[in-house]
Amino acid sequence: MALIVQKFGGTSVGTVERIEQVADKVKKFRDAGDDLVVVLSAMSGETNRLIDLAKQISGDGQPVPRELDVIVSTGEQVTIALLAMALIKRGVPAVSYTGNQVRILTDSAHNKARILQIDDQKIRGDLKAGRVVVVAGFQGVDEHGNITTLGRGGSDTTGVALAAALKADECQIYTDVDGVYTTDPRVVSVAQRLDKITFEEMLEMASLGSKVLQIRAVEFAGKYNVPLRVLHSFKEGPGTLITIDEEETMEQPIISGIAFNRDEAKLTIRGVPDTPGVAFKILGPISAANIEVDMIVQNVAHDNTTDFTFTVHRNDFQAAQTVLENTAREIGAREVIGDTKIAKVSIVGVGMRSHAGVASRMFESLAKESINIQMISTSEIKVSVVIEEKYLELAVRALHTAFELDAPVRQGE
Amino acid sequence: MALIVQKFGGTSVGTVERIEQVADKVKKFRDAGDDLVVVLSAMSGETNRLIDLAKQISGDGQPVPRELDVIVSTGEQVTIALLAMALIKRGVPAVSYTGNQVRILTDSAHNKARILQIDDQKIRGDLKAGRVVVVAGFQGVDEHGNITTLGRGGSDTTGVALAAALKADECQIYTDVDGVYTTDPRVVSVAQRLDKITFEEMLEMASLGSKVLQIRAVEFAGKYNVPLRVLHSFKEGPGTLITIDEEETMEQPIISGIAFNRDEAKLTIRGVPDTPGVAFKILGPISAANIEVDMIVQNVAHDNTTDFTFTVHRNDFQAAQTVLENTAREIGAREVIGDTKIAKVSIVGVGMRSHAGVASRMFESLAKESINIQMISTSEIKVSVVIEEKYLELAVRALHTAFELDAPVRQGE
Repeated sequence: MALIVQKFGGTSVGTVERIEQVADKVKKFRDAGDDLVVVLSAMSGETNRLIDLAKQISGDGQPVPRELDVIVSTGEQVTIALLAMALIKRGVPAVSYTGNQVRILTDSAHNKARILQIDDQKIRGDLKAGRVVVVAGFQGVDEHGNITTLGRGGSDTTGVALAAALKADECQIYTDVDGVYTTDPRVVSVAQRLDKITFEEMLEMASLGSKVLQIRAVEFAGKYNVPLRVLHSFKEGPGTLITIDEEETMEQPIISGIAFNRDEAKLTIRGVPDTPGVAFKILGPISAANIEVDMIVQNVAHDNTTDFTFTVHRNDFQAAQTVLENTAREIGAREVIGDTKIAKVSIVGVGMRSHAGVASRMFESLAKESINIQMISTSEIKVSVVIEEKYLELAVRALHTAFELDAPVRQGE
Repeated sequence: MALIVQKFGGTSVGTVERIEQVADKVKKFRDAGDDLVVVLSAMSGETNRLIDLAKQISGDGQPVPRELDVIVSTGEQVTIALLAMALIKRGVPAVSYTGNQVRILTDSAHNKARILQIDDQKIRGDLKAGRVVVVAGFQGVDEHGNITTLGRGGSDTTGVALAAALKADECQIYTDVDGVYTTDPRVVSVAQRLDKITFEEMLEMASLGSKVLQIRAVEFAGKYNVPLRVLHSFKEGPGTLITIDEEETMEQPIISGIAFNRDEAKLTIRGVPDTPGVAFKILGPISAANIEVDMIVQNVAHDNTTDFTFTVHRNDFQAAQTVLENTAREIGAREVIGDTKIAKVSIVGVGMRSHAGVASRMFESLAKESINIQMISTSEIKVSVVIEEKYLELAVRALHTAFELDAPVRQGE
């Protein structure tokens, strides 16, 4: 008999029918003897509807953060009670709790609060009494009794935090995919589901556009060593277990997966006078404009000038270009050029720590396909390159094969 | 500078535009120097939408009462935050509180809870700090931290209870009418708005189909002597003040208003053997079937049998008829006859306590119009008659004139 925290997202509880299906799934675990805490998001679309109302009232200004939390927290409050009803209808004792009722204590940073402490008393009492406990994700309460929310997607974090507080055996995150793949199966048909992946790898995959899990939730799970499992909401299967890297065995693959994204755009400021502090002069105004920068490359100078390149989210491209052109005039740079037709491809794996030559193998296989590399950036368990967008699929397929990630061709195929 | 509790119902906050109008109105009072606590209902239609969701999940069974309260309480939670935002946008400091956050302590009777106690600490602190406090109507929390609701229309009760707890100078209930009238202006064009009415009269008017206020709220206001004012949400005007009967002066009209309703149906069981306990034998099964009975008339017996007549809500007519026919067989009564084409007309006024002849004046004016009276029932401040439905408007107009309630004809009209 295990204690399991299960988290279902917005599409999994998007209709009454789907909530019934979730209830069936929860009942199956309960019947098998597990103790269950279920964390839910709002019905898909509901949070946006509520935010729209708040925006309409707020006119040109931002919605007042404290009051926005009062509104959006109602979304989960509806789904938890609906699931509790569906469970009780099935003869499964159940009770719903808002973040405030559990007492998920957070700081007072409305709309992006952080969990400080979870009171497990009430939940433990209910589990002992045989009840399934259904908890509203994404929300908590500060020390003054104000309702807070953890920000979009924060329900994953609620699940992990509850699992940590209750020392649960596993935190299961139900999604619309049946696990974490070596890469996107829509791009590489022979992509494979991973049985296991480390927290670090998952973090790199997540931050690189594999939107299976919230980054914060993975960080949290890693910090408190909560075994995290990604599963499909309505299909059977073992999913992917995300856990600490216990066994660095020989069999461990060097690379766990290929991540990529097309969300970025590239900006280069050319002919920058090569003086100290120039990087700050360029990125300071970008940061002041609330634009996040991802990759940054500056190469050695020649003729006392240098070129400085960085990537931003495509949505921020216009704004960043405007800022950068002002900067160029101020510091006397030659020109600003931009490119939105780029893609980032990354190989991720804890195995590469102990293997030299992983990067060169990557560059070699891209060269074989005549794909030009525009930018390179590396971390301990990741190598990322920026290439022309049109080569993205080709690059991902080539790397997937080069690092021996392709699924074996099944008989008869 | 007065402390005023203002309550706005579902249609007054039914859209973002209407919430903006409410904010304008609240700001006007605030600018005039009043301290304000505003109680809101859910946006019109929202509570029904939430109940529908709960019913869909619950299938044939009733929604689990505790969980239903978790769901439906979200409706007010949305409107309070929206109004707080709209006020802050106007430069009026404001804060929203759910029933739980105020701590409106209720018993644990989910879906129909009663308020036990209100903690005024938080609200007083906010008022002192110059904030308008916006409170979710219709909801509270029990001693175990479970969310409760007061039942449909309970927002009026929240307003009155808050006014009582805060010893407010006035509780203003904003509605879609500009006050309490001598009778329905759609029936009698010369009906007049009353400046003042007593709690007792208001109770009789409300229970007789003048659906301006929740009966429970009026009872509550009377009990704690909270001056209650009915006003129009979006039109200017003094409204009607409902208060205790302080001055029984000569000028006081004998009759304050004419109430009526068409919601009832009449059932007669004829030829009942005239033995002790027969009334219970007839009404016991009706009550056991959860059918509420309004007027009851039994006249003197002749030939050892009697006729027994009572009225029920029209929706319950079929069910009551079936029950009554069973009873008739059991006790050997002659027949059951029913009539749904009836209407009840009542004259209401504290003045009639000290005036003989009010009833006879009523009967006389009906006789003049050749309207036959089928049943009569009286209380200290009310006389009700049941008549054929088609004479309803004629009867109301005749009585309105007979008791000198008609508005003076304005010049030029």
